[in-house]
Amino acid sequence: MNTLPKQNLHGRDSQLVEQEGKRQDLGFGTKLNDTYSRLVNKDGSFNVAHKNGTFWDRLNLYNRLITMTWPHFLGWVLAFYLLANGFFAGIYVLAGAEYLQSTSDQSFYGPFWKAFFFSSQTLTTVGYGHIAPTSFLSSIIAAFESMMGLLSFALVTGLLYGRFSRPSAHIKFSQRAVFAPYLDVNGWMFRVINARSNQLINVQVEVTMSRMELKADGDHYRKYYPLALERTKVTFFPTNWTLVHPITRESPLHGCTPDDLAKSDTEFLILLRAMDDTFSQEVHRRYSYRYDEILWGHKFRPMFDNSQQSMLNLDLDKLDETEEVALN
Amino acid sequence: MNTLPKQNLHGRDSQLVEQEGKRQDLGFGTKLNDTYSRLVNKDGSFNVAHKNGTFWDRLNLYNRLITMTWPHFLGWVLAFYLLANGFFAGIYVLAGAEYLQSTSDQSFYGPFWKAFFFSSQTLTTVGYGHIAPTSFLSSIIAAFESMMGLLSFALVTGLLYGRFSRPSAHIKFSQRAVFAPYLDVNGWMFRVINARSNQLINVQVEVTMSRMELKADGDHYRKYYPLALERTKVTFFPTNWTLVHPITRESPLHGCTPDDLAKSDTEFLILLRAMDDTFSQEVHRRYSYRYDEILWGHKFRPMFDNSQQSMLNLDLDKLDETEEVALN
Amino acid sequence: MNTLPKQNLHGRDSQLVEQEGKRQDLGFGTKLNDTYSRLVNKDGSFNVAHKNGTFWDRLNLYNRLITMTWPHFLGWVLAFYLLANGFFAGIYVLAGAEYLQSTSDQSFYGPFWKAFFFSSQTLTTVGYGHIAPTSFLSSIIAAFESMMGLLSFALVTGLLYGRFSRPSAHIKFSQRAVFAPYLDVNGWMFRVINARSNQLINVQVEVTMSRMELKADGDHYRKYYPLALERTKVTFFPTNWTLVHPITRESPLHGCTPDDLAKSDTEFLILLRAMDDTFSQEVHRRYSYRYDEILWGHKFRPMFDNSQQSMLNLDLDKLDETEEVALN
Amino acid sequence: MNTLPKQNLHGRDSQLVEQEGKRQDLGFGTKLNDTYSRLVNKDGSFNVAHKNGTFWDRLNLYNRLITMTWPHFLGWVLAFYLLANGFFAGIYVLAGAEYLQSTSDQSFYGPFWKAFFFSSQTLTTVGYGHIAPTSFLSSIIAAFESMMGLLSFALVTGLLYGRFSRPSAHIKFSQRAVFAPYLDVNGWMFRVINARSNQLINVQVEVTMSRMELKADGDHYRKYYPLALERTKVTFFPTNWTLVHPITRESPLHGCTPDDLAKSDTEFLILLRAMDDTFSQEVHRRYSYRYDEILWGHKFRPMFDNSQQSMLNLDLDKLDETEEVALN
Repeated sequence: MNTLPKQNLHGRDSQLVEQEGKRQDLGFGTKLNDTYSRLVNKDGSFNVAHKNGTFWDRLNLYNRLITMTWPHFLGWVLAFYLLANGFFAGIYVLAGAEYLQSTSDQSFYGPFWKAFFFSSQTLTTVGYGHIAPTSFLSSIIAAFESMMGLLSFALVTGLLYGRFSRPSAHIKFSQRAVFAPYLDVNGWMFRVINARSNQLINVQVEVTMSRMELKADGDHYRKYYPLALERTKVTFFPTNWTLVHPITRESPLHGCTPDDLAKSDTEFLILLRAMDDTFSQEVHRRYSYRYDEILWGHKFRPMFDNSQQSMLNLDLDKLDETEEVALN
Repeated sequence: MNTLPKQNLHGRDSQLVEQEGKRQDLGFGTKLNDTYSRLVNKDGSFNVAHKNGTFWDRLNLYNRLITMTWPHFLGWVLAFYLLANGFFAGIYVLAGAEYLQSTSDQSFYGPFWKAFFFSSQTLTTVGYGHIAPTSFLSSIIAAFESMMGLLSFALVTGLLYGRFSRPSAHIKFSQRAVFAPYLDVNGWMFRVINARSNQLINVQVEVTMSRMELKADGDHYRKYYPLALERTKVTFFPTNWTLVHPITRESPLHGCTPDDLAKSDTEFLILLRAMDDTFSQEVHRRYSYRYDEILWGHKFRPMFDNSQQSMLNLDLDKLDETEEVALN
Repeated sequence: MNTLPKQNLHGRDSQLVEQEGKRQDLGFGTKLNDTYSRLVNKDGSFNVAHKNGTFWDRLNLYNRLITMTWPHFLGWVLAFYLLANGFFAGIYVLAGAEYLQSTSDQSFYGPFWKAFFFSSQTLTTVGYGHIAPTSFLSSIIAAFESMMGLLSFALVTGLLYGRFSRPSAHIKFSQRAVFAPYLDVNGWMFRVINARSNQLINVQVEVTMSRMELKADGDHYRKYYPLALERTKVTFFPTNWTLVHPITRESPLHGCTPDDLAKSDTEFLILLRAMDDTFSQEVHRRYSYRYDEILWGHKFRPMFDNSQQSMLNLDLDKLDETEEVALN
Repeated sequence: MNTLPKQNLHGRDSQLVEQEGKRQDLGFGTKLNDTYSRLVNKDGSFNVAHKNGTFWDRLNLYNRLITMTWPHFLGWVLAFYLLANGFFAGIYVLAGAEYLQSTSDQSFYGPFWKAFFFSSQTLTTVGYGHIAPTSFLSSIIAAFESMMGLLSFALVTGLLYGRFSRPSAHIKFSQRAVFAPYLDVNGWMFRVINARSNQLINVQVEVTMSRMELKADGDHYRKYYPLALERTKVTFFPTNWTLVHPITRESPLHGCTPDDLAKSDTEFLILLRAMDDTFSQEVHRRYSYRYDEILWGHKFRPMFDNSQQSMLNLDLDKLDETEEVALN
C-alpha cells in the first residue's frame, strides 16, 4: 500500500544517543523551552492550550461536571431542569394543551405553564395526577419524558457521587518559598499542610528546578535539575511539613544570587503524591514557585499554638507566616 | 480415586529449561506464531476468537453495557423500556383492562395503549393515578412492576456511573510510524497526544517488535524483541510526545530495508500506561504498527501553532502531519 | 495501673531467630499444620471457621449481599419488598384502614390488601393517589414510609453497582494438573484461561507446594516450598496459558512417586493476580490442586480449533482435555 | 515585586545535613517530641488539633458523613427530611395553603400539616395527588421542591454507596502487647485477627518504637526505632497472627526493665496494610501500644477451639486471653 524507497537502516555507533537519553525534562519537551512563562500554574495546570480535536474530546463533559465548583454545578443542574421543562412544555402545547386534563380549574395560568408544571411533575416522576395526559400523543410524550426523568436521576446521582468520591486532598502550600539558614548551611524551603481532617499517609515529594542556561552555541535553553531534599517521604502527615533543599556544594543553587534566579527565569516544580487513608486513593498535587515568589533570608514561624498544653494545636492560618533571619 | 502408575519423577539437569525461560512472547504463546495476521488490532483487541464457554461468560453483560458506544447504550435503554412496557401492557390486558380504572374517558386509544401508558407510569414510578388498578390481580401486577421499576432505576444509575467513571484516556497515536533521522543516526518514531484536557502523569511506554524468523530447522517462527526507547517515561504529558527508538548497532532493526520488514511480517506492539490525575486511575492503551503503516524517510511536523506568543498552542489536527526527509 | 515485675530483658544471641524468620508458611501458621484436610478450597476460601465475634462482623452484610449469587440477591430483594409492604400494611390497618381514602370502590379485597397496595405505591414512590391517607396518623406513617422507600432505592442502587463493579475475572483453572514431559525433562503443569472477553494484563502466578514432612524428632509437620515456574508473568493473556514447573534436580518434586505425594498429603497452592484492562482493577484468584487431582503421564490437548484459518479460535470447552503420554 | 537583598548562597560542606537526613520520625516532626501524651490514639487518629482554616475544610462534610456511625447517619437523614419538609411547609403556608387543593376534606389537621404532608409527597416524588398545587406560586415551589427531592435521592444514594464501599477491614488488635519467651530468647508480641469473613491478602506490618531519650546537652527528645519482626508480611491471613519482635542483642529493647519503658514514655506505633480480596482495595490500620498496655511475662493462649476435628475453629473472643509465663 505504500512505496517505500529501498533504503537501508545502517545502524551506526552514536555519541549523542546515550547523552540525549539522560536529559530530564519531566515531559515538557523542547518546545516549552523557548517560552518565558510559568511552566506549572498555581492550580497545577500547564501553560499549554489545545486546538482542534474532536468536539467530545474538547468538551470532556464528565471531567468538567466533576471538577467544576459546586455553585457552577448546581447552576447547570437547575438550568438543565428549567430548559428541559420548557422544552417539553412547548411540545405538549404543540400536541394540544387541552389534552392535559386538569382535575381543577387551572386555566388562570395559561396552557404553557400548565404544560410546564405537568412536565416538571413528569420529569421528577412526582406525578401528582391533578394534571394528566388524555390524548395518545401527549401520553406518548409523557411516557418518553418520564424515561428521560429516570435517566436524569441516574445521571445526577452518578455525577454527585463522582464529585464526592473524587480523590482529593486539600494540601496547602505556603504562598512563598524561602531561603533560610538550615543547620550549618542554608536551605531552600517551603511548607505544606493538610487542611482537612482526612489522614494522608505515605506522602512523597519531588522537586525539580528549571532554569534557562546558556548553551555553548550562544543559545539559551531550559534545563531541569532534580533537587535533593532533606526528606522526600513521611509515613504520617499529622502536622505541617517543611521541605528543605540544603544548599551544599552539590546543589545547583550553590553560589546563586537573587539576580541569578531572576535572569535565568528559575522555577521550582513540585510534585506531591499521597495516599488518602479514608478512601485508599492516591492523590496527586502539582505546584510551582517562581523566582519572584521566594523570600530571601526569611524563615517560617512555627504553626503551633501552645496556649493549651493538653493537645497540640496546629493553627492553619499561620502557614504563610515568616520572619527575617540572617543567612549563614 | 485415580490409579496413578507408580512412576518416578527422576529430575535431570536440563539445558533447555533455562533457555526457554528467557523466551519473551508477551503472552501470545506459540500458537499465535503461525498466523500471518495482525497480533494487536488498532483498538487494542487481539485476533483471537472464543468458542463455547458458559452463556453468561460469553454475554459478559456488564462489560458490554459499559464499553458500548453511547448511541448503542441509549438505544438499548429505550428498547428495554418499550419492551418492558409492552410486556406488562399485555399482562394487564390479560388480567382485564377494565380493572385499570380511568378518571377520564380514554377509551379512544383502546385497552392495550391504556395498559401501556399505565405500565410506563408504573415502571418510572411517575404514577399520575388518572389510570389506577382496581382489581386484586392488576394491583399485584402493578406492585411487582413498580418494584421492577425501582430495580431498573438502580441498574441504569449504576450503568451510567460505571460508563462515566471507567478509566479512560483519549490518547491518540499517529496513524503511521516513521523512519527519520535522529541525532547522528536514524530512528523509528511514532507520536502520541492526550486528546482530552485531563492531565495524565507518569506516562510509560513499552515497545516490542515482533517478526517471523527462520529457524535452524528451516521453519519460520515469530520472535519478539523489546525496543530500547530514547525515553520510556515522562512525569507530565502536557504536549505531544514523539517516541524514538534510535537505530544503533544494537538495534534489531539495524540494516533492515523496507522489504525485510514486509517479508518478516514485522509488527511493532505498543503498551502505554498512565495515571489519570483527576480520578487517580491507571489507564492502559495498546496499539500496534505493522510494516505497511510505517513511512520510510519521513519526519513529523511540529504540532505547535506559534501565531499566539502568549501561550503554547498544540494543534491536535497536526498529529499525523509528516514531511519527507533524507535518512542519515 | 499494672504491677509489672522488675525483670530485665537481657537480650541474647539467638541461633533460632534468624532460622525461624526464613520459614515460609504463607500465613497458614503452625496450627494449620496438624490438619489433614485441604488448605485452600476450590473457590479460594480457607478451611477455617470463625466463632463468636460481634454480630455485625459475623453478618458482614454488605460483603454477603455483594458476593451472593444473582438469584439469591433478587430473592432477598423481593422478600424484603414483600415483608416491608406487609409490615406497613399491618401498621396502616392498626392506624385505621378507613383513613386510606379510595377514589373507587375497592372494598372487595379487604382492608389489609388495600393497605398493602397503598404501602407498595408509597414505598416505590409510584403514588397513584387512587388510595391516599386522610388521617394525621396515616399521613405521618406514609411520609415515613416514602422516606424509607427513598433510602431503599438508594441502597439497592448502591448494591447493584457494587455487585457489577466488583473486581472479578472469570479465570478458569483446568480441573486437574498433570505430570507431562517438558522439553528434555518432565514438568508439573496446569492450564488457565480467561473465560470472559475482558482483557487481562500483567497476569502473575505464584505456586507453593505444601506437604507433610518427618521432623528429626519423629513428628510430622507441614512444609511449604515455592515452585519455580517456566514463566511467572505474561503481559497479555489472549489465549490459554499452560503453567509449567520443570522438574529438574532443584525441584522439591525430584524423585517423587504418586505414592509419595499421597502419603505426604501434598497440595499445590496457586495465587494468581492480574489487572482488568476495562476497569483498571487488580483481580486475585486462589486455587489449589491436591495430590489426587493430578494426572500422572498425561498432557493437555491444544485448545485451538483450526477449522477456520482467518482467526485463531480458542475452544473454551477443551480446557480439561488431556491425553496419555510417556514421561521422560 | 520583592526586593531581595543581593546575597549569595555560598554552599558549604556540611557535617550535619547527611546526618539529619537519616533521622526517622515517621512525620511526627520535632514539635511532637515535647509532649508526654500518646502519639497515636487507639482508633488510629493523632493527638493534633487543627485551628482556623476554611469553613468547608473544617467541616469536611463528605468525609464526616462517610465515617460517622450508622445510627448517627440515619439520624441526620431523618433530621434533614423533617427539617426540609417543615421548611417547605412553611413556604407553602406563606404562599397560601388554600392553593393546595385537596380531593378530600383534610381540614381537620390544619393548613401547616396539610402543607407538610404535601411537601413530603413532593420531596420523595411519591406524589399521590390527593393534595395538589393549584396556584402558579405553589406550583413553582412544588416544581423546585421535587427537583430538590431528586438531588436528595442522588445524594443519599451516593452517600450510602460511599459508606458501604469504603475500604474497611475489621482487623482487631489484642488489647495488650506482651513480653513472652520466644524460642531461646524473649520477644515483644501482639496479636491481630481479621474479625470479618472478607479475605485479606498480602498483609504487611511495620512497628516503630518511640521513646524519650537524654541528649548530650541534657535535654530530652523523642527518638524513633524501627523494630525488626520475625515476619513482616503474610500472603494469606485466615487465622490469628502473632507478631513477634525478638529481643536479641540488636534490639533497642535489650536490657530494658518495665521502669525504663515507663520513664522514657515508650510507645509502639503499628502500621498495618492489607489488600481486601473482595473489592481489591488497599486497607490501612494504625494502632499503638503504650508502656502501660504491655504485660510483662505473659503469653497469648491459643485461639483455636479443638472440640471439632473436622475444621479449624478460630474463637474470636479469645483474642485477649493471656497466661503468665516465666521469661527466658
